Amino acid sequence: MPLITTESKGVFVIAVTPFTDTLAVDMASVDSVTDFYFDKGADGLTILGMMGEAPKLTQGEALDITRRTLARAEGRPVVVGVSAPGLAAIDELTRAVMDMGAAGVMVAPPGTLKTDDQIFAYYQSVVDTIGADVPLVLQDFPLVTGIHISSSLLGRIVEAMPSIVMLKHEDWPGLAKISDIRAAEAKGRRRLSVLCGNGGVFLPEEMERGADGAMTGFAFPEMMVDVVRLAGAGDMERAQDIFDAYLPLVRYEQQPGLGLAVRKHTLHKRGAIASPQQRRPGAPLAPRAVAEVDRLIARQERKLKDIG
Amino acid sequence: MPLITTESKGVFVIAVTPFTDTLAVDMASVDSVTDFYFDKGADGLTILGMMGEAPKLTQGEALDITRRTLARAEGRPVVVGVSAPGLAAIDELTRAVMDMGAAGVMVAPPGTLKTDDQIFAYYQSVVDTIGADVPLVLQDFPLVTGIHISSSLLGRIVEAMPSIVMLKHEDWPGLAKISDIRAAEAKGRRRLSVLCGNGGVFLPEEMERGADGAMTGFAFPEMMVDVVRLAGAGDMERAQDIFDAYLPLVRYEQQPGLGLAVRKHTLHKRGAIASPQQRRPGAPLAPRAVAEVDRLIARQERKLKDIG
Amino acid sequence: MPLITTESKGVFVIAVTPFTDTLAVDMASVDSVTDFYFDKGADGLTILGMMGEAPKLTQGEALDITRRTLARAEGRPVVVGVSAPGLAAIDELTRAVMDMGAAGVMVAPPGTLKTDDQIFAYYQSVVDTIGADVPLVLQDFPLVTGIHISSSLLGRIVEAMPSIVMLKHEDWPGLAKISDIRAAEAKGRRRLSVLCGNGGVFLPEEMERGADGAMTGFAFPEMMVDVVRLAGAGDMERAQDIFDAYLPLVRYEQQPGLGLAVRKHTLHKRGAIASPQQRRPGAPLAPRAVAEVDRLIARQERKLKDIG
Amino acid sequence: MPLITTESKGVFVIAVTPFTDTLAVDMASVDSVTDFYFDKGADGLTILGMMGEAPKLTQGEALDITRRTLARAEGRPVVVGVSAPGLAAIDELTRAVMDMGAAGVMVAPPGTLKTDDQIFAYYQSVVDTIGADVPLVLQDFPLVTGIHISSSLLGRIVEAMPSIVMLKHEDWPGLAKISDIRAAEAKGRRRLSVLCGNGGVFLPEEMERGADGAMTGFAFPEMMVDVVRLAGAGDMERAQDIFDAYLPLVRYEQQPGLGLAVRKHTLHKRGAIASPQQRRPGAPLAPRAVAEVDRLIARQERKLKDIG
Repeated sequence: MPLITTESKGVFVIAVTPFTDTLAVDMASVDSVTDFYFDKGADGLTILGMMGEAPKLTQGEALDITRRTLARAEGRPVVVGVSAPGLAAIDELTRAVMDMGAAGVMVAPPGTLKTDDQIFAYYQSVVDTIGADVPLVLQDFPLVTGIHISSSLLGRIVEAMPSIVMLKHEDWPGLAKISDIRAAEAKGRRRLSVLCGNGGVFLPEEMERGADGAMTGFAFPEMMVDVVRLAGAGDMERAQDIFDAYLPLVRYEQQPGLGLAVRKHTLHKRGAIASPQQRRPGAPLAPRAVAEVDRLIARQERKLKDIG
Repeated sequence: MPLITTESKGVFVIAVTPFTDTLAVDMASVDSVTDFYFDKGADGLTILGMMGEAPKLTQGEALDITRRTLARAEGRPVVVGVSAPGLAAIDELTRAVMDMGAAGVMVAPPGTLKTDDQIFAYYQSVVDTIGADVPLVLQDFPLVTGIHISSSLLGRIVEAMPSIVMLKHEDWPGLAKISDIRAAEAKGRRRLSVLCGNGGVFLPEEMERGADGAMTGFAFPEMMVDVVRLAGAGDMERAQDIFDAYLPLVRYEQQPGLGLAVRKHTLHKRGAIASPQQRRPGAPLAPRAVAEVDRLIARQERKLKDIG
Repeated sequence: MPLITTESKGVFVIAVTPFTDTLAVDMASVDSVTDFYFDKGADGLTILGMMGEAPKLTQGEALDITRRTLARAEGRPVVVGVSAPGLAAIDELTRAVMDMGAAGVMVAPPGTLKTDDQIFAYYQSVVDTIGADVPLVLQDFPLVTGIHISSSLLGRIVEAMPSIVMLKHEDWPGLAKISDIRAAEAKGRRRLSVLCGNGGVFLPEEMERGADGAMTGFAFPEMMVDVVRLAGAGDMERAQDIFDAYLPLVRYEQQPGLGLAVRKHTLHKRGAIASPQQRRPGAPLAPRAVAEVDRLIARQERKLKDIG
Repeated sequence: MPLITTESKGVFVIAVTPFTDTLAVDMASVDSVTDFYFDKGADGLTILGMMGEAPKLTQGEALDITRRTLARAEGRPVVVGVSAPGLAAIDELTRAVMDMGAAGVMVAPPGTLKTDDQIFAYYQSVVDTIGADVPLVLQDFPLVTGIHISSSLLGRIVEAMPSIVMLKHEDWPGLAKISDIRAAEAKGRRRLSVLCGNGGVFLPEEMERGADGAMTGFAFPEMMVDVVRLAGAGDMERAQDIFDAYLPLVRYEQQPGLGLAVRKHTLHKRGAIASPQQRRPGAPLAPRAVAEVDRLIARQERKLKDIG
């Protein structure tokens, strides 16, 4: 099975976890949404992230979903989120999913860390626990975790822990951080793969600053695929034209807490999952919001036609 | 001088505080930016808000800026931010600016409040201190203050404190809160003026949900003026078309911490202020970001031409 | 097996989780520390709490420890902490431990809750999920969780959810909250068992205010047993004399983060556990601190002799 | 007038700000409480700190209190708290109080700082703003500010900013930090005066670890004076005996939020101030708490007699 590396590029979609209307895990929809993401051009998937409702699953369910997704991915890379309150659970889950064939694991810092030194020590503990042979993605998402990692601290971590091969970049504002990373590499620091999150809301600028792609779950992954491909080909104006057509919906989907309901509604509407249900405390999308989303999608389709 | 009321509507621009290149308050630019905002169609101004760098001013400077802005506004309503660590300072500043002719004052909750009851008690203390005859704007901006006000708590506050005539709405997500307010009013609760912030990033949806306008500082106030006017006239498609043309820049300007640098750069570029300088800890806009903003503005102009 | 009720009283010791020097769970020490707590007069135990290093255990380990403790407790009540990032895990763990014979489960609010309404809804979700027949302890520990529950919100929860039979009280300051609870009950609200935490640092005042006992893990449980007994008998001066003799160590053990190392050192020194080891990120007690603790214990013994 | 230096030692009492029953500043009580503190053996005072209700004062009141206290101190050192939301206000207040004869100023970090680099940059900005000739006290009080300063970050600050001559130490736990500071100095880092806060609740251990004294406001300053003097003379057992007699009250007074009411009640009872009033949102001490405090003071007096 392929492992992610510091050279990994492209679009890794943050996969939703589909539930039936009675809130059981919907394995048939795990298959269909996996197919959907790859059909739209994804290079890989990331499962059991925050937007994958990982904390709402039992451990058994988490392993079943991983097994099913890996089988359906047929050798394409799948990263698995293993964040947990303690190292023992992170270790146990990591061993299990790497044995199944995961491409790497992703860990976000717990909100209890207070200082740069504590954040550094935390990642050192994770690496020591799961082993330096497991490719690790550092999820840098201060809006949700409350943990802010400065460019200088990130540099210390990158230098000390070679098994951290990838940054899931979702600091906000975060453009300068990408420039900082690439500037440090130009001066000799080892490479880090940088895939950007935040629903893709800054993807054109992020690509121009040197990102390697996207790792986020916007319900139209083809936008991210196109923007990353066009940016790679140097056609930033076309990339931005396509991005702009989707931006009103990107913005709407990026609302904290509400975003997953928007995403699942859209994926359901597009036929990728059988039901838009979330487990509690997820709120269903209110009728008013459904109308807003549907209107934005209709406008988006018209604009995409206009730009050809 | 006019006072704001529960019926206030339209666009109140959050004004920047202009500094010279040596970081003194630039009174000539206070005049020019005041003219600029009203020339672009603003119905009123709000000064000494967070984006007005109020905490970076001495008390004397704050009063000088208020006096100057009020003189230049020539009778149009100016709300003054009076948030401060303690009630004594809030009281002192409120008395001074209301005597000068302010249309009302705005107070954000301090980040030390812990429970619904404490938030309620805080606003009760403010009203008791400044007097129930001073029109008060409640600034609801949890991303910055860390204080979350539920719809039910807002209802308790609105019912108990009639002098809170306006909500500066910048909860995120916040669309349901507007619907909640209007639904409660439909059932008999007294009216509240709702002007929306967050750089205008949800303005079309906010207007459809029942907002009365915008109170935010996007550097192209004409966007907000147009969207509010068109929404008022029921032409939501045209409102959204104009909004969409500006959205890439709205999104860019809304980056926390960085936004004011973008805003001042743009206002300087548009001739509204003589220098884009901020006082510390404000960061100047890096050259890379200047290029990104300028490119977005150029694209915006082309799009506005396209939609006519 | 006995269940906790709204009438539960006495001392429930928060049990440590003993590890071997190689950081495996030390089942022999689970037995010995269980015996130790009951020998010192405990009325019950609470396992898998924050101070029980629950987040550092795998799920399998957590269940093994529960089974072992319940067997050793021989019918005396054992509450099990089941806090987890999501309801599915809370449900799974609750079912398992209640089947084994636990006396009830304890849940602390997650730090992501923002408003009174969200805190209320969270506990409603927990009750709906685990069933209203499972006796539930609400852990109110804002210093660690960041969640503040006002007396009025607690009242709403108590009235709506009869299966919440007990409050693990560790708000700080928190004396007024006990008085508020008992005052509301005097006016007709249903009873709530109140057991106090925070290492016992306010136990005499808490008992006088109407608490039913202690639920905390101070390494000399006999202090809590004596204070609760003497307070129950109305001998507050003697209760306070005993408390005062232990207070310098109580204070030292209550240091956040460091406290567990102090506690395990002391329990090891007293022969209750075979090793003072903690799993990471727990820090071992530095030699300097060991000397401070040992000196405080020596002074404590002299004082206890003095007061007879 | 004397300035504080890296060699400053002893007890600097955090002074309360006395108000009349109608909540005006009580200048006569400023005199009497200043006398009281020095009569009990204080080496200096710190005014306008958090416990001095500084945020509840107008700027004019703050300056009047400073002038009055400095006059009454008759040349003994008075540090002035100048924390404010922005650098302009810090600068203005610093200039004013240093001109009046203050011994130095104290600044706590604002709660908006996110990373080690931001905390460092903040203090660099403060030093640049007020000038490197003004002796500066860094207030390290994470329980209230939310800002955690690791030993390594403190070292960077100490090395870069020689005008930071003193640490108001109130991290919790914080004993290891004192040891870290003295260990770094033993290896050549320049000296820092370390005065400890937190109501004195760890004063014996802090002195043994190398602190230079106390800077806190416990209402029996003679305890701190005795402990610091005895620790300096090497008589730790006697120091601890005296400390232990006061500890039940120290503990009670240290309750966050409530502590100042306890302190003002006690100072009023001892004749140091004419009224125990606080400005809002300060809560008056409830009758139940008054009884608890008075009982603790009565017991304390008996114990002090016992130890002679």
